[in-house]
Amino acid sequence: MPGEFDFIQRYLSNRQVNRKDVHLSLGDDCAIVKAPDNVRIALSTDTLVAGTHFLSNANPAWVAHKALASNLSDLAAMGATPAWVSLALTLPEMDEAWLAPFCDTFFELANYYHVQLIGGDTTRGPLSMTLTVQGFIPENTALLRSGAKVGDWIFVTGELGDSKAGLDVILDNSLSTKPFASELEKRHYIATPRIVVGQALLPHASAAVDISDGLIADLRHILSRSGVGASIDVSQLPFSPELLAYCGDENVARQYALTSGEEYELCFTVPAAQRKTVENALAHTGTKVTCIGQIRPQGVFELHDKGRAVDWQLTGYDHFKA
Amino acid sequence: MPGEFDFIQRYLSNRQVNRKDVHLSLGDDCAIVKAPDNVRIALSTDTLVAGTHFLSNANPAWVAHKALASNLSDLAAMGATPAWVSLALTLPEMDEAWLAPFCDTFFELANYYHVQLIGGDTTRGPLSMTLTVQGFIPENTALLRSGAKVGDWIFVTGELGDSKAGLDVILDNSLSTKPFASELEKRHYIATPRIVVGQALLPHASAAVDISDGLIADLRHILSRSGVGASIDVSQLPFSPELLAYCGDENVARQYALTSGEEYELCFTVPAAQRKTVENALAHTGTKVTCIGQIRPQGVFELHDKGRAVDWQLTGYDHFKA
Repeated sequence: MPGEFDFIQRYLSNRQVNRKDVHLSLGDDCAIVKAPDNVRIALSTDTLVAGTHFLSNANPAWVAHKALASNLSDLAAMGATPAWVSLALTLPEMDEAWLAPFCDTFFELANYYHVQLIGGDTTRGPLSMTLTVQGFIPENTALLRSGAKVGDWIFVTGELGDSKAGLDVILDNSLSTKPFASELEKRHYIATPRIVVGQALLPHASAAVDISDGLIADLRHILSRSGVGASIDVSQLPFSPELLAYCGDENVARQYALTSGEEYELCFTVPAAQRKTVENALAHTGTKVTCIGQIRPQGVFELHDKGRAVDWQLTGYDHFKA
Repeated sequence: MPGEFDFIQRYLSNRQVNRKDVHLSLGDDCAIVKAPDNVRIALSTDTLVAGTHFLSNANPAWVAHKALASNLSDLAAMGATPAWVSLALTLPEMDEAWLAPFCDTFFELANYYHVQLIGGDTTRGPLSMTLTVQGFIPENTALLRSGAKVGDWIFVTGELGDSKAGLDVILDNSLSTKPFASELEKRHYIATPRIVVGQALLPHASAAVDISDGLIADLRHILSRSGVGASIDVSQLPFSPELLAYCGDENVARQYALTSGEEYELCFTVPAAQRKTVENALAHTGTKVTCIGQIRPQGVFELHDKGRAVDWQLTGYDHFKA
C-alpha cells in the first residue's frame, strides 16, 4: 500500500522491546525468528470483521484488546507461552483518531504478555483484522481437546455470562438503562486471556478449550473429540453479581453462563486423582476456578440443579447478526 | 462461526498429506508444529481485499493462486523453503461455486510447494483473505534487502510488465480487443513464486526483494536499506513478446517493465566476484535471469538506454483504484 498507508507501518514500528528470538521484524520481505530447540510452536489465527465481531463505531481500544486477547486465549487453551504475533489490518481510510488508541492498547497488551509484533500488512478495504499468534509449548505436552476421560471433573475459570449481556446492550440501545449495562458492554470487549492458568494446567489437565462459542458449545468440542459425555450442575455455574443484577433472576443468569460466547475463559477437565494438585497449582495464579460437573460416558449430556434435572431450551451464540 | 461456515472448515480439511513437522493442524484451539533445530523461521503476512487486490467477480481459482503465490514470493525473496500456511477467509456468504475452484487451486499450489495448511478462520463479511506463510532458512543466512554494495550487479528473474498490462485489461474492458489481452489478464493473477531461485541465491546474492510494487519501487527498497544507488540499462529489461504486441512500442513495454507491480519476480544484487557462480547456479533452475544494471553510490539513480540517458516520467503501481 503506497502513500498514507506507509504511515501505519511506521505507526506499528518501534513500539516494543525486541525479543531475543526475533532476528528481524518489520521492514523486509519476511520476519525472521527462531524457536528454542526444545519446544513446539502453537499457532492460532483469528479474523475480526466490523459488523460481525464488533460494531464499526466500537471503541478502537476495546477492539484492539478483543482482537489480541481472543487470539492469546487460544494459546492459553493449549498451555502455550505467547511469543509472536502478526497483524493484518484492513481500514477504509487512514484515520489517526482510530489508529492511535487501537495501537496503544494493542502494544500495551502485547508487551504485558511479552509478545512481539513480527509481521503485518495494512490494506485499504472494509474494516477488519486478522491476527496470527504463536507461542511455545514443551515437547510432548499440550492441552488438547481430546484427552477427557469418564470421571474427570469439569472446571471453568472466572465468571461466565457477562459477554452475552454486554452484547445484548451493544445490539439494543434500549437495554442501556438496565443495571450495570455499560460495565457489561465493556466486559464484552475486555477479556483476560488465561495464559498463566493454561501453563499451570499443562502437566495436569486431561483436556481444555477456551470459551468462544459458549460453554455448552465449546464443552461439546471436548466431548466429541474425547468420545465422552458430561453432567453439569447449573447451581455451580460462576457468574458475576453484576450479571445477576442485570438478569434479575438466578436461572436467567445461569442460562447466560451456559451460552455466552467470546468469554475467553477456559473450560478444562481434570482426572479425579489430580484434582487436589490442580486446585493447589491454580491457587497460585490468583484466578478463580470452579468445578461445574463431571465427564460421563459418550451419549450422556445432562444439566441438573443439585441433582434435579433441568430442561432449558438454550439458544446458541451467534456473534452479531448479519 | 456456526452452521454453514462449519462446511468451509471441513472443505479445507484433509486436502493435504501431513508434513512430519506438523503435529496437529486443524480442529483444536491451535495448530502445533516444530521447526528443525538448525533453522530460523521466515514469516510473511499478506491480505488481499476484493476491490483493492482483485475484483469480486474474478476467477476464484486465479484469486487463490495470486493469494498463495504472492505470499510464497516473500519467502522466495528471503531464500526460504516454504513449510506452513494459515488462511483466514472472509466471505459474504457460503458459495460452493466460488469455494470449490478456490480451494482446488489453493491446495494444488500448496501441495506443489509442500506447504501444509495449519490454521485458519472462516468468517462472514466482505470478501477478503489473509495468509501467513512460514518457511525455513539455515541459521546465519538470509537474503536481506540491506546487503547491496557499490559495484554489485542487479538482476531480475523472468519477464516484467505483463501484470500491469493485465490489470489495464481488467479495469478497462475496452482494452480486451488488444493483442493477447486475455492472456495478459490471466498472467496478472498467475505468477510463479521464485522459490528455487531464492534458495540458489542464498549463499551468493548480496540483497533481494520480490517485485510487488513495481521494479523501480522495490529496487528502491534495496537501495534505501543498503545505503546505495543504482544505474539501470532499460535496453536490458526483459519483457514478453505478448507485452510488446500489446504495447506496440518497445519503449512503452520497457516502462511497463519498470513499474508493473504484483509481478512476483525477484530483483537481486550479486557481487561482481560471484557473478559467474550465480549464473551457473541459476542455470540449473531453468529460470531466466537478466542483468539489468549495477549498484552505484548513494544518491545516484539513473536510467539509460545503452549509455544514453532516458528521462521517463514513470507513475507508480496503485493496485486497484478505490
